[in-house]
Amino acid sequence: MKKEELLLKLKNGIIVSCQAQPGDPTFGNDCILAFAKAAFIGGASGLRLNGPEDIKKIKKEVPLPIIGIYKDRDLDSEVYITPTSKHFEEVLKAGADIIAVDATKRKHIEAENGAEYIKFLRKIFPEVIIMADISDYEEGVLAWKASADLLSTTLSGYTPYTKGKKLPDFKLVKELAKVVDIPVILEGGVWTPEDVKYAFQCGAYAVVIGTAITRPHIITKRFVMATKNIEEIYNEE
Amino acid sequence: MKKEELLLKLKNGIIVSCQAQPGDPTFGNDCILAFAKAAFIGGASGLRLNGPEDIKKIKKEVPLPIIGIYKDRDLDSEVYITPTSKHFEEVLKAGADIIAVDATKRKHIEAENGAEYIKFLRKIFPEVIIMADISDYEEGVLAWKASADLLSTTLSGYTPYTKGKKLPDFKLVKELAKVVDIPVILEGGVWTPEDVKYAFQCGAYAVVIGTAITRPHIITKRFVMATKNIEEIYNEE
Repeated sequence: MKKEELLLKLKNGIIVSCQAQPGDPTFGNDCILAFAKAAFIGGASGLRLNGPEDIKKIKKEVPLPIIGIYKDRDLDSEVYITPTSKHFEEVLKAGADIIAVDATKRKHIEAENGAEYIKFLRKIFPEVIIMADISDYEEGVLAWKASADLLSTTLSGYTPYTKGKKLPDFKLVKELAKVVDIPVILEGGVWTPEDVKYAFQCGAYAVVIGTAITRPHIITKRFVMATKNIEEIYNEE
Repeated sequence: MKKEELLLKLKNGIIVSCQAQPGDPTFGNDCILAFAKAAFIGGASGLRLNGPEDIKKIKKEVPLPIIGIYKDRDLDSEVYITPTSKHFEEVLKAGADIIAVDATKRKHIEAENGAEYIKFLRKIFPEVIIMADISDYEEGVLAWKASADLLSTTLSGYTPYTKGKKLPDFKLVKELAKVVDIPVILEGGVWTPEDVKYAFQCGAYAVVIGTAITRPHIITKRFVMATKNIEEIYNEE
């Protein structure tokens, strides 16, 4: 499928992030596949999946475009979303249609920063659709100039210099959508249909939702907090 | 555990309903158990589970009080939530701490209506904690007088005479909580932390949440509807 055609499939839609971490009750069993199927049945336009295994398994069973990532926290680096070209290649081979990478200004393993990392990847994988996971405006502009095909606000609130930011980061979407000529995706902290509507008013191309659909222990916690009148915001990646 | 002690465990808490129907992507695999574990981790105070199999399996693994039901739609009756004393007994044997039954005014299989059915069950199971799933005020009062131990608004919106009612049915909780001296549970259509807070203001003893936590295809659909600016309310039992 051509790049333009694939991106159009995501336009104005909901992308469901189906991930679990070791220790989550949904990890290591049928749940992630079930969530991906549920996303499809519910009308999602794409999936965001972590790791070659899940990508391979789900690609066979769910006919939706896949944004693949490969989280690796075992490296000596702050960067853990598809942190090297080797991770990138594995996600590609597993069948991801789009590959998302950390595109923050932080030191990368194979490059000085996220923008340089994208340039580096682009040389090796000229045809692959690359999504830049950014945390602020500057990173978005640099990633765009470095040839990223889409931007996603995934890391806003999760870099040391954006920590504590109120999510969803609508402002970031708004500012970037005015300037760049590639899709800007809102990801992070989306909990309500109102968030979704407002994201599109801000110029979002699509919205990624994870926790509010696929992390039942955090959804439960959010309701339990309401019984205690605690106004906590659950930003867990 | 004594009745009072068990009911106190549920007080002011969130009860997570973990159910799937054939055809749901979460049916017939590890998901319902994972949801129950997630509910526990997230701080829920109880579970609502359907069918002896799930109850048995989850009771072994999750240390939360279980409200058991047994849905059976294969009988020649409008009533399908624990519709006979045989279903009731199976749920009890499976280990449920509380058993919920249809307590609507509709004709029951072993009784003229829900209140009579509760009286009938009470004779056979004098010590069992019975939750009356009701759809309107009158049914709540009658179930209370018939010896129900708790009321739940589960069926508001799902009987022919309450169809189309706006959910959650806060008004029903409010009216019943003023009159009866047993716990009134809000169940049905709870989607937001604000719903939870308001439920307690209305006098709810606890709140049951199902779909918003454990039915990812409907959660997805709700967000997808927002992309289309469709203001539909998802009341699916």
